[in-house]
Amino acid sequence: MKKLALVLPLLLINTLAVADELLKLQQNPNNWVMPAGNYNNQRYSQLDQINKDNVADLKMAWSFSTGVLHGHEGNTLIIDDTMYVHTPFPNNVFALDLNNDGAIKWSYKPKQDYNETVNHMCCDTVNRGLAYADGKIFLNQADTTLVALDMDTGKVMWQHQRDDPKRGATSTGAPHVFNDKVLVGISGGDYGIRGYIKAYDLNGKPQWQVYNTGSDAEMGFDPKTTTSMLKPVGKDSSLKTWQGDQWQIGGGTTWGWFSYDPDLNLFYYGSGNPSNWNPMQRPGDNKWTSSLFARDLDSGKANWVYQMTPHDEWGYDGVNEIILVDQKINDKMRKTAVHFDANGFAYTMDRVNGGLLVANKFDPSVNWSNGVNLETGLHERVVQYSTDNNGTDVSISGICPTSFGSKNQQPASYSPHTGLFYIPTSDVCMDYEPYEVEYTSGQLYAGATTTTFQAPSSTNIGKFIAWDTRVGEIIWSNSERFSVWSGALATASDLVFYGTLEGYVKALDAQSGRELWRFKTPSGIIGNVNTYQHKGEQYISILSGISSRGVFGIDIPSLNGDTCPPLTTSPYDDLVKWTKLGSILSVFTLPNKFLK
Amino acid sequence: MKKLALVLPLLLINTLAVADELLKLQQNPNNWVMPAGNYNNQRYSQLDQINKDNVADLKMAWSFSTGVLHGHEGNTLIIDDTMYVHTPFPNNVFALDLNNDGAIKWSYKPKQDYNETVNHMCCDTVNRGLAYADGKIFLNQADTTLVALDMDTGKVMWQHQRDDPKRGATSTGAPHVFNDKVLVGISGGDYGIRGYIKAYDLNGKPQWQVYNTGSDAEMGFDPKTTTSMLKPVGKDSSLKTWQGDQWQIGGGTTWGWFSYDPDLNLFYYGSGNPSNWNPMQRPGDNKWTSSLFARDLDSGKANWVYQMTPHDEWGYDGVNEIILVDQKINDKMRKTAVHFDANGFAYTMDRVNGGLLVANKFDPSVNWSNGVNLETGLHERVVQYSTDNNGTDVSISGICPTSFGSKNQQPASYSPHTGLFYIPTSDVCMDYEPYEVEYTSGQLYAGATTTTFQAPSSTNIGKFIAWDTRVGEIIWSNSERFSVWSGALATASDLVFYGTLEGYVKALDAQSGRELWRFKTPSGIIGNVNTYQHKGEQYISILSGISSRGVFGIDIPSLNGDTCPPLTTSPYDDLVKWTKLGSILSVFTLPNKFLK
Repeated sequence: MKKLALVLPLLLINTLAVADELLKLQQNPNNWVMPAGNYNNQRYSQLDQINKDNVADLKMAWSFSTGVLHGHEGNTLIIDDTMYVHTPFPNNVFALDLNNDGAIKWSYKPKQDYNETVNHMCCDTVNRGLAYADGKIFLNQADTTLVALDMDTGKVMWQHQRDDPKRGATSTGAPHVFNDKVLVGISGGDYGIRGYIKAYDLNGKPQWQVYNTGSDAEMGFDPKTTTSMLKPVGKDSSLKTWQGDQWQIGGGTTWGWFSYDPDLNLFYYGSGNPSNWNPMQRPGDNKWTSSLFARDLDSGKANWVYQMTPHDEWGYDGVNEIILVDQKINDKMRKTAVHFDANGFAYTMDRVNGGLLVANKFDPSVNWSNGVNLETGLHERVVQYSTDNNGTDVSISGICPTSFGSKNQQPASYSPHTGLFYIPTSDVCMDYEPYEVEYTSGQLYAGATTTTFQAPSSTNIGKFIAWDTRVGEIIWSNSERFSVWSGALATASDLVFYGTLEGYVKALDAQSGRELWRFKTPSGIIGNVNTYQHKGEQYISILSGISSRGVFGIDIPSLNGDTCPPLTTSPYDDLVKWTKLGSILSVFTLPNKFLK
Repeated sequence: MKKLALVLPLLLINTLAVADELLKLQQNPNNWVMPAGNYNNQRYSQLDQINKDNVADLKMAWSFSTGVLHGHEGNTLIIDDTMYVHTPFPNNVFALDLNNDGAIKWSYKPKQDYNETVNHMCCDTVNRGLAYADGKIFLNQADTTLVALDMDTGKVMWQHQRDDPKRGATSTGAPHVFNDKVLVGISGGDYGIRGYIKAYDLNGKPQWQVYNTGSDAEMGFDPKTTTSMLKPVGKDSSLKTWQGDQWQIGGGTTWGWFSYDPDLNLFYYGSGNPSNWNPMQRPGDNKWTSSLFARDLDSGKANWVYQMTPHDEWGYDGVNEIILVDQKINDKMRKTAVHFDANGFAYTMDRVNGGLLVANKFDPSVNWSNGVNLETGLHERVVQYSTDNNGTDVSISGICPTSFGSKNQQPASYSPHTGLFYIPTSDVCMDYEPYEVEYTSGQLYAGATTTTFQAPSSTNIGKFIAWDTRVGEIIWSNSERFSVWSGALATASDLVFYGTLEGYVKALDAQSGRELWRFKTPSGIIGNVNTYQHKGEQYISILSGISSRGVFGIDIPSLNGDTCPPLTTSPYDDLVKWTKLGSILSVFTLPNKFLK
């Protein structure tokens, strides 16, 4: 008893110290200490040295090739004098010395089985980045191994493989550290993988694992206290919405960006679309796929849940980030959770109780739904665009948006200063043809073929928009040649940054959308812009590097140098006029004259 | 008869027009129209907008990823509004639109057999760039196919494969267009390939082919008029210096940079070391390997020849560029040809008659020779460092320089304004152990193993030096962490540029060697800096991208992400702290404030 009494307080002190360190680090804008910069997923920086007056003079400071020619999603971490850079499979990690133009302090090269892993990934072999806590850099490998590396040496402190890539369970999402827990999700919805979140403590001890489908116990649902649309979900809220045990191969995976409210001790994330893509093969609402979740960090138990696309018929993943913002909605100050979904709707939830406050289209071309009933939370669906009504092997034409959505994982940013959200979007529609498919473990479990094309109402296939979620309106819109597949950054000097598929990184006036600066990086950008300050100078950092394996699930063989024409055309074929594969970090700063 | 009379003048007019176009294009410093910028191989530009006062403000203008992660040697061509970029195997070519931040106007992707070609290349799969004439971009593919591409569309106008990679005959050198001829050489000395130069007319019709070894007829030698050291070479000057027909597998290949004097109508190049590397297996001088050549452009016939390293015992290639400079030597104005050889000596020849004017060590650590007798042209060899005296399987220690030389192919530049040469060098020595090897077609025919290490007399393994060939002296020397493997550029504003293996591109004061600017590009630099002017702005362009296959013939597996330690250590192992593989073109210019 005496021993326990001695040990517990020490553990408690350590836990508090770690949580405190992370809070402090994210509040210091010189750092970029987690995927989104801070718990609330705002991707907003207090730094303002680079401003509207001088941003046109921004110049590259240094650059670094990661040596891996696949899609570079995510962004770097910056902690004190070191930048941490990740790569796509094989998921190498580099610690770069900011005092020495990015010289390599250490590098880590995991050993992963190529065939077992890469051959079980639906799309490109991306990785969305690293997390940090307690002197450890966390890497979520494609083969579902979570690794903790010593931040100073790159030595493995612990690692744990949580799943089996051979069955199609792989990882592309970043790990997230909230307080004293490392959270990781799972990819592989198109292989029938059942989505979950797993938590570890910082020493690698598994804490809890909760699923998005299945029994209440496995989901961490309490029929009475877990709510949806402010009402208890009741018993077997998921099981009741599936035929038989289809939920076991029903998708709802978790490869997006998570957020955390330390005051409520709740974390937030969305689940992927149901599996497979033939809705006629899986009758029911398929809960809780394509849903938003709020869960208790310590136990994983669900506080509230909301299904955005019940019985998805189009492949609309719900994994996009949830941004936590305290804002006035209908003249009342609210703790809100804001989410721009693949299905084309922007959702503003009360993040305390899960109440649905606003749900508007942020993509004007959306046609599968006329809108959301705020009382029921349900869509008014347009029968013409249902893929569930006409039998298998019938193509439904002209559905907007396409399966990868009006927006995909590339994260939006929010500026508390302008009160606006900045969103990378796609203007792409599709024809969708469901087909019968039988499940085999480790085999692609697709169930539909899609053909993508530019939205008929649009002049091109991408936009970067500013959105006011309080009123549910686009404030300004910056047309882009291609879908914007890069995450955004907003800064205190009212600048907003993002990258384009041609390879431009751009700075816009956050109020007007006017372009103030652009730079052509070596390859198409699908990474996220971030910023940091080192020795008194503000820097902008971005990974560029696109792959022919199509982050969209659309192959762009022309990028890879294939001489054969692709079997089908896509609105991205023209990328061959702009970019080749790449693997480069570019870092920008102001010329000396602007620095004190 | 009438028909002939009509045709001949037309052909003549066309030939003259083409020659005239190339002369005009190279005299306009806005362009960079051939590998070295001009016929004389000086790599000097008249442009002076970027100068000592503003070079510190140089900033990256745009960048481009070629999408091929191997060593990027050579440099771009710039003709009017278009930049032409080549890649290592598979030897893709891109035409980039300078009016549009390098957007891709067209790309060309050759089909080459990977196994036949790459598996028969001794070192990295580099390519040293493109040539231009008459609306055609010329590409010398690894599989020895010479291709002419329409400069506007990238369409193949003609192509011709001149050799067979399966026997080890491959190509890494750039094609060179002089007047109305396209000249190409051959690689594969380490496979026993017999070196030659082949000429085509601009329409793809083979003109002549001359060898560096063998019979007088095949070498284009006239025993009476072809001279060496101002004397006729006599009959069978090559055959007499080989045992039997070893000259057929005797190397002397031609993968370097050629130059041309239009007034003399002579072109200049050097031949590679003899094959194999065990000197005891090939008694005799092994003429004309490791030699300098002057040949008539129209016929290929040899005017003069000079063997720098008779009966090479160390793998000292003679392929390094010959720079044509009119300068005063011993108070007399001379048309000279200057060459910095792998063997560590700087040779100044009278390029009209092949007289040897100066031959001094430009690398102070050279120990295999005490010097060159200017009367005989022969070295005073140091017996201790002979690899021919002690039998097979005996290691000779401490030979300086190492086999890849005090300098390798990376070209030096010359400034007529300072009168100095600017030379990238290595300070690396070796232990050399010859072994018996039998020749098999298509198999590596090496014959020695080497171990490399830092020159004992040096503080590190590389320098960038300024050399005055009139007096045979180093004027200044800029120490580098690694061998300098990038080609140099001198400009009229007395700046000199080069890249480093860590990835820095640097500008020095051409007079003092003081560093005025540096920038960390994404990967190690083994390409050559060039410059051009577009819409009134001067640009600097450089390819960065290093490979673990070692342009040095030294593997650097750590660069490739291998987790196994290399079997032997090399002075390049530390590169892992600085760079990863890369594939990036970086283009620099001045900020707007410096432009009118």
